[in-house]
Amino acid sequence: MPHRPSHTKPLSSASTEASDRHADLRQRLIEAAAAEIAEKGLSGLKAREVTRRAGCALGALYTGFADLDDLVLHVNLRSLGLLGEALKAALPATGASPEDISQALARAYVAFALDQPQLWAALFPQNRPTPPPDWYRREHDQLIARLITPLGRLRPDLPPERMLLRIRTLFGAVHGVVQLSQQNQLVGVPREMLYEEVAALVTAMTLGARSACRR
Amino acid sequence: MPHRPSHTKPLSSASTEASDRHADLRQRLIEAAAAEIAEKGLSGLKAREVTRRAGCALGALYTGFADLDDLVLHVNLRSLGLLGEALKAALPATGASPEDISQALARAYVAFALDQPQLWAALFPQNRPTPPPDWYRREHDQLIARLITPLGRLRPDLPPERMLLRIRTLFGAVHGVVQLSQQNQLVGVPREMLYEEVAALVTAMTLGARSACRR
Repeated sequence: MPHRPSHTKPLSSASTEASDRHADLRQRLIEAAAAEIAEKGLSGLKAREVTRRAGCALGALYTGFADLDDLVLHVNLRSLGLLGEALKAALPATGASPEDISQALARAYVAFALDQPQLWAALFPQNRPTPPPDWYRREHDQLIARLITPLGRLRPDLPPERMLLRIRTLFGAVHGVVQLSQQNQLVGVPREMLYEEVAALVTAMTLGARSACRR
Repeated sequence: MPHRPSHTKPLSSASTEASDRHADLRQRLIEAAAAEIAEKGLSGLKAREVTRRAGCALGALYTGFADLDDLVLHVNLRSLGLLGEALKAALPATGASPEDISQALARAYVAFALDQPQLWAALFPQNRPTPPPDWYRREHDQLIARLITPLGRLRPDLPPERMLLRIRTLFGAVHGVVQLSQQNQLVGVPREMLYEEVAALVTAMTLGARSACRR
């Protein structure tokens, strides 16, 4: 619970138990909401369905979380964690070229979007009610920052903060192709060509980065 | 009215007048809906506000169009037309390199999205109720096809249908960076860096396309 202050004095056994129960309830609600979003999408999410799935009273949601938006942020934090693990697992062995690393990361991103289309789409809400809180932003930034070591080698000429910006741009490029395809937009690439076209894009971007770097 | 069969025999003067009035009503409704979307976004669009702005009765909307979704498609057709004109106007003089052409088109696209954020966003509905009709699809495909002459020179080695697919991918890449920034997504590039980062992306993609072509 990264947004709650940690306790500064030892807890009595009774309050430890209460705190465990609270943490357990929160976890069950997050898992239930994730399952609901995965099935019906973010726009179909209903507090009543979440608590029914979690096996608790409707009011329990508001004991565990400020509101449904707060719960969704925790589901997104869980999704970011899964995405981070998938990207980490996809990284080739040390010594791989930045091109191979980029291809592996892009493939893992496409796979995540195709495997978990609704949880993935929920990460990019069209109308975010309020800016996300700091604890969410921190986790998010850490995930992006973790890409700088493998991808920074694409442009060793750029200073780190510039490369961080460029990684967001490269990410946006891959994400755009995936999103237009996933949303069945007219201009989207047909689903069956998605891996291939993203790979071609990454090839062009990494070859181009190498040339730009040499200039 | 591309989805209505054209008349096969000459119209009497009275029916010509009725047909003119009908066309005029449709045009006024399209302009009113475009203005409403530009102000309040697609999700805030209400039939009553559109007809009030167009100066007609609520029922007139359904004389002119099948429903509000049909009207929105006509607004999008209008937006595609404006975007097409903006891209055409941005094309540098004959003899420009495919790299310069790509940069000019990408800059014009960013400018369109920044100038008309709501009309632009309405072109990419997250939940399209039904696949768009053929007349809309045709106009859309024609806009993309018109890019193949200037951009096809990036990869003269690719057959035209393959290049058409690649243009959709290149478009998706630029679009993704613009969209994440416009939607204030955490991973989005800050608004003030958008032109610069899109330009860097286009440089990398076009340099990469040239290297890939030479391989």
